[in-house]
Amino acid sequence: MDAAQEAHNREAFRQAVVNTLERRLFYVPSFKIYRGVAGLYDYGPPGCAVKSNVLAFWRQHFVLEENMLEVDCPCVTPEIVLKASGHVDKFTDLMVKDEKTGTCYRADHLLKDYCKDKLEKDPNLSAEKAAELRHVLAVLDDLSAEELGAKIKSYGITAPDTKNSLSDPYPFNLMFQTSIGPSGLSPGYMRPETAQGIFVNFKDLYYYNGNKLPFAAAQIGQAFRNEISPRQGLLRVREFTLAEIEHFVDPDDKSHPKFSEVASLEFLMFPREDQVSGRAARRIPIGEAVTQGIVNNETLGYFIGRVYLFLTELGIDKDRLRFRQHLANEMAHYAADCWDAEIECSYGWIECVGIADRSAYDLRAHTKLVIAPVKKELGLAFKGNQRMVVEALEAMGEEEAMEMKATLETKGEAEFHVCTLDKVVTIKSNMVSINKEKKKEHQRVFTPSVIEPSFGIGRIIYCLYEHSFYTRPSKDGDEQLNVFRFPPLVAPIKCTVFPLVQNQQYEEVARNISRALTTVGISYKIDITGTSIGKRYARTDELGVPFAITVDSTSSVTVRERDSKQQIRVNVDEVASVVKEVTDGVSTWADVLWRYPTHSS
Amino acid sequence: MDAAQEAHNREAFRQAVVNTLERRLFYVPSFKIYRGVAGLYDYGPPGCAVKSNVLAFWRQHFVLEENMLEVDCPCVTPEIVLKASGHVDKFTDLMVKDEKTGTCYRADHLLKDYCKDKLEKDPNLSAEKAAELRHVLAVLDDLSAEELGAKIKSYGITAPDTKNSLSDPYPFNLMFQTSIGPSGLSPGYMRPETAQGIFVNFKDLYYYNGNKLPFAAAQIGQAFRNEISPRQGLLRVREFTLAEIEHFVDPDDKSHPKFSEVASLEFLMFPREDQVSGRAARRIPIGEAVTQGIVNNETLGYFIGRVYLFLTELGIDKDRLRFRQHLANEMAHYAADCWDAEIECSYGWIECVGIADRSAYDLRAHTKLVIAPVKKELGLAFKGNQRMVVEALEAMGEEEAMEMKATLETKGEAEFHVCTLDKVVTIKSNMVSINKEKKKEHQRVFTPSVIEPSFGIGRIIYCLYEHSFYTRPSKDGDEQLNVFRFPPLVAPIKCTVFPLVQNQQYEEVARNISRALTTVGISYKIDITGTSIGKRYARTDELGVPFAITVDSTSSVTVRERDSKQQIRVNVDEVASVVKEVTDGVSTWADVLWRYPTHSS
Repeated sequence: MDAAQEAHNREAFRQAVVNTLERRLFYVPSFKIYRGVAGLYDYGPPGCAVKSNVLAFWRQHFVLEENMLEVDCPCVTPEIVLKASGHVDKFTDLMVKDEKTGTCYRADHLLKDYCKDKLEKDPNLSAEKAAELRHVLAVLDDLSAEELGAKIKSYGITAPDTKNSLSDPYPFNLMFQTSIGPSGLSPGYMRPETAQGIFVNFKDLYYYNGNKLPFAAAQIGQAFRNEISPRQGLLRVREFTLAEIEHFVDPDDKSHPKFSEVASLEFLMFPREDQVSGRAARRIPIGEAVTQGIVNNETLGYFIGRVYLFLTELGIDKDRLRFRQHLANEMAHYAADCWDAEIECSYGWIECVGIADRSAYDLRAHTKLVIAPVKKELGLAFKGNQRMVVEALEAMGEEEAMEMKATLETKGEAEFHVCTLDKVVTIKSNMVSINKEKKKEHQRVFTPSVIEPSFGIGRIIYCLYEHSFYTRPSKDGDEQLNVFRFPPLVAPIKCTVFPLVQNQQYEEVARNISRALTTVGISYKIDITGTSIGKRYARTDELGVPFAITVDSTSSVTVRERDSKQQIRVNVDEVASVVKEVTDGVSTWADVLWRYPTHSS
Repeated sequence: MDAAQEAHNREAFRQAVVNTLERRLFYVPSFKIYRGVAGLYDYGPPGCAVKSNVLAFWRQHFVLEENMLEVDCPCVTPEIVLKASGHVDKFTDLMVKDEKTGTCYRADHLLKDYCKDKLEKDPNLSAEKAAELRHVLAVLDDLSAEELGAKIKSYGITAPDTKNSLSDPYPFNLMFQTSIGPSGLSPGYMRPETAQGIFVNFKDLYYYNGNKLPFAAAQIGQAFRNEISPRQGLLRVREFTLAEIEHFVDPDDKSHPKFSEVASLEFLMFPREDQVSGRAARRIPIGEAVTQGIVNNETLGYFIGRVYLFLTELGIDKDRLRFRQHLANEMAHYAADCWDAEIECSYGWIECVGIADRSAYDLRAHTKLVIAPVKKELGLAFKGNQRMVVEALEAMGEEEAMEMKATLETKGEAEFHVCTLDKVVTIKSNMVSINKEKKKEHQRVFTPSVIEPSFGIGRIIYCLYEHSFYTRPSKDGDEQLNVFRFPPLVAPIKCTVFPLVQNQQYEEVARNISRALTTVGISYKIDITGTSIGKRYARTDELGVPFAITVDSTSSVTVRERDSKQQIRVNVDEVASVVKEVTDGVSTWADVLWRYPTHSS
């Protein structure tokens, strides 16, 4: 099969999946009745259920299993925090504008599309030129604004829609900006990642953990990136759910007590050297990868192993999952090592989880000098407001604190604005002492390293959809039916309840079974339409519902498994607990198939 | 006890609760190390766990129990949607500014504080003047900007911090504004409620439900209000989690098939008439309230009953929970009836759940005219992009559509911008027909009514903290210890594991028990410090952990219940399943107390 045919098949497969997903409301473009907004999607009922199942499993697999400290911080973030983290200055993409219409494009996307197009479709391309274009693609992420602009000019790239000429590339900050409070004087942003909420609370969390390392904090929440040109459906969006872990460790001891539990796992890894030398990804046991120094340390290796288990238990195909190490040019300047879990889908290999050893950068960015409020004096002066004043003093930035120190030393007092009181108070020199941080000689002083596994939940879910989708012929062979082979863990609804025919007795039984399912916490869908049972199966196979209960007598019912289409007979009283058993993974379908009589329709 | 003493006690109680909550990281002001931002809070580990327990129970109690359609829509919302819903024009508070410093205040808060202060503290207040101030307090929510300004002027109210004079009141929109995409031409807001995401998807959800009424959709998510002056901790914040239900019903039939299941519930209700005539709230069975017409209809009554069950199962004290009907002046102009679940805490009676019959306003606001794209022609013209063009055409607003209709009729074609393609296309008159909606004569046409229970999760959790908090003397009576009496459903951690003394054997047993707890999905905290067992109990009582497992032998262990402090002996192998049993509510503590030998320490 040639490349063009393969691309066509990928495209056709994707259209089949996406059409099914949109038609069954797994997700739809947001605000459709108002024409939509690019890069924003609504999860409809089945998509929302899949998402909450994935998040619940994430909590079980990571937070509960490792006793992590989960936190929940706001999306609205003041500028000062994102200034310290570097996002205000550096969280940008390079943009070019159509010089006539003003339409904006991502500069690297235009260059990438141009190169790919030439390479795929230009039969007269010289070998030399082809090599040049391939080189451009390889170094695309490294190009500066000037270099990108020069390439765009020299290749004569124009605006794709109008063929108008383009502006020079310039940086566009990807954060949604807003203003906090009524004054208009406090700029803020919608957070671009959830991690900062953990870093600013490090001191408190460390204390909560009994001042002991290592420990991990975790957060699930919305993050926002005002993409220049969102594309590829759920893969590049303007608002998305992140699940992030920050595992703090002693920089001199990155061993992990549970590493042995994952060491023998073997899966596709794609180390830096193999990428550079043009080799393919290969299966390496993670234990070996750490021993050989391919993966920097045990803790990083442990999380790679856990991420592998997480993704494959969700139903990600292990043959289309690889862990790719960042090349030197991809890594943030503060990172010690970084691996992406990449999942192959119709768009290619997609980064779905980043697992970075962020070293100590983020904590250092938020480290400050020593400010010691004198609580007794402050209490006398501010009474009930003392706590707010103390907290505000402790929170001063370095510059402001050093200024206050100088003012106190010269004038004996200083004006000070307390945000939480929204007023200006007078601080006297006996109320606070300000000093640059001194290392205590009798103890080792260090900033912990941070290992950060960061999960793009929407991307994982989209890949899961593609990996779970297949079609099979209908009974009479006249059409292809869609099926999602979700494991029960992920399935949006665990079972359906169908009275075989419209009849009061069967509906009564169906209602009783429904009540029993609700009691044991199994989500179900009841369908009392008179539609043929085959059609009803097809409708719910397309939602990935793993089990169907057909009420065809008042004493026992038929339970059907989605993929094998095998059926068993189970007593009405037992059926809810049997479905719960296979749904919770206490038993497999094979187990119950052996216990109950099979049914042939 | 006089009013001042009572106020003082309330204040002291609140301080004790809030100090415990902040010290144990249930919640802390956000971005503290950068001095914080008023009205933003982080949930630390125990608070985050409580929140996710409350949300999980909400899903079980409402979404699963009623088979609701849960959706998940973005926070970033384009202006056009919030223009239609009325938020751009009407979602405002009246603000005044300190004329010298520019500091902003809510006008009604200043007037309210002035009146309350006078009434409480001015001994020379005439009976006439007192009556006037009480009247002002009663009608505060009804005052126009002019009336508020006149009162502020006539009472000589000045800026509380500086005593400077104040500006006239003017409206301030409470939505956080932002800009979507790189052009700067698409204004957007962070959603002020989650409901609109459901309304704009009504047509699809109705179809998903087989075009049948009634049905309910639900959404849990962040909402944002840029409050002028946030106060009262978690009660008035700038970002919060809402859980909203939109139950769509036939406006001519608001009966509910499951109403009989709640009809006999009896709790404090505070109908409009009783408020106006100065009577107190009284216990009325909800069935009677509906029959007597106090509550407008069965569906509204059903949800009031379900909300009562939800809140009391979480641990809200039923004697400090009432359902208060909105007065005529409080209701939105489109509401048919509205009840707030109010919970009494140290700040007074706080609205925590609003249960409104919103009538048809929200759906009407998003209803549009009939635009029928001719897919065949569009397919020929736009091929692969056909779907985007069709969706964009269908999404035109009334004004734009009527303009296109006119252009097509005069010129035969019209330019049309397709956002999702980000380009302008030419639409010819054979590609679309545009008409004002016509009612079909052969079917009943109506817009469904909406019953909307809307839950402020942060407010519920704060009240729960106050209702769950108590203190008791330590063993030797020298200090008061704090306890949260959370039910297991809510408790942030379900149990602790303590080796009695530091010893390798006991720690081994503790680790085995921990593993067993993880396997059955019970969150725990292990404490292997050598601190006295009493201290360790006290530390976890303060987190509301209901059960403690003390490892004091290698074969059996002691299980202690938090509130009764009763202890039983359980075999090591059994202990995880016993704790799971009482945590899941399968057994009560009394049940297991009867089954296992008690232990006296």
